[in-house]
Amino acid sequence: MAETIRIIGIDPGLRRTGWGVVEYLGNSLRFVASGSVCSDDKATLASRLCQLHDGLSQVLHQAMPHEAAVEQTFVNKDATATLKLGQARGIAMLVPALAGLPVAEYAPNAVKKAVIGVGHGDKKQIHMMVKVLMPKAVFDTHDAADALAIAICHAHHRQSVAYRLKQIA
Amino acid sequence: MAETIRIIGIDPGLRRTGWGVVEYLGNSLRFVASGSVCSDDKATLASRLCQLHDGLSQVLHQAMPHEAAVEQTFVNKDATATLKLGQARGIAMLVPALAGLPVAEYAPNAVKKAVIGVGHGDKKQIHMMVKVLMPKAVFDTHDAADALAIAICHAHHRQSVAYRLKQIA
Repeated sequence: MAETIRIIGIDPGLRRTGWGVVEYLGNSLRFVASGSVCSDDKATLASRLCQLHDGLSQVLHQAMPHEAAVEQTFVNKDATATLKLGQARGIAMLVPALAGLPVAEYAPNAVKKAVIGVGHGDKKQIHMMVKVLMPKAVFDTHDAADALAIAICHAHHRQSVAYRLKQIA
Repeated sequence: MAETIRIIGIDPGLRRTGWGVVEYLGNSLRFVASGSVCSDDKATLASRLCQLHDGLSQVLHQAMPHEAAVEQTFVNKDATATLKLGQARGIAMLVPALAGLPVAEYAPNAVKKAVIGVGHGDKKQIHMMVKVLMPKAVFDTHDAADALAIAICHAHHRQSVAYRLKQIA
């Protein structure tokens, strides 16, 4: 019997980290919840990282996912922005790992491919496809929608790995 | 009566994060301990961040510092390296902040200025001056020596801030 897997997708950012939880059973996806964890940009960096840690810990405690997936940060040309994102991303990977969850990483084009079908496309297309794949999905920010797309990507990837293993066995 | 302040300096790195603890009373510095926390480069990124988290948490538990200081990462031209360092640095700032410690940040040239007297100089000069300032200091890696230099920088900075406040009062 197929087992229901609950996946949390995380789109890391120092100012706002989006999260989205989906359930995956066989071929079907179900929206569970989504939201974002914010940090106060007037606080010190250490306090902001604590805010992200505490917020994500609370989400994990409530949503109780089995697996996590985090977007592989886009490395842009601004080194200061990359460093900030890196710090937030460190927390986004640490929190589920400390809770004992396996943490997968996906490049932005892998997420797009899983949701839109091709490795390129804008945010609008991603959000529209998240709604097509899960009509009951609710998201209040772009980051939450992106996080749901990351969770969907992981669900697809799990399936294909399982499928390949089946072919080998 | 002056109060003894115990400071932990942290030099973050994904592969190896150096730490050094000093005690500061009035004008005198005393070496307490130093070392480094390593992560296994064959493990997943999430596991490596957990290893840094667990290692630093253990150090804090044993050394019981009052304040923490972390080096402001040098932003180099390699974005992938900057991102890796950012992730490690996120953990290096989070762990003391979660333990309730104030976490200060210092740029590399501020650390050099505090230890050598000028804002430039190589690692050898820093290590030599750490030994001059604290003859009993023991460090087995460059990262541990750098972490002690960061702790010394914070001790000096605390003093000068206190001095300025005294002048104003």
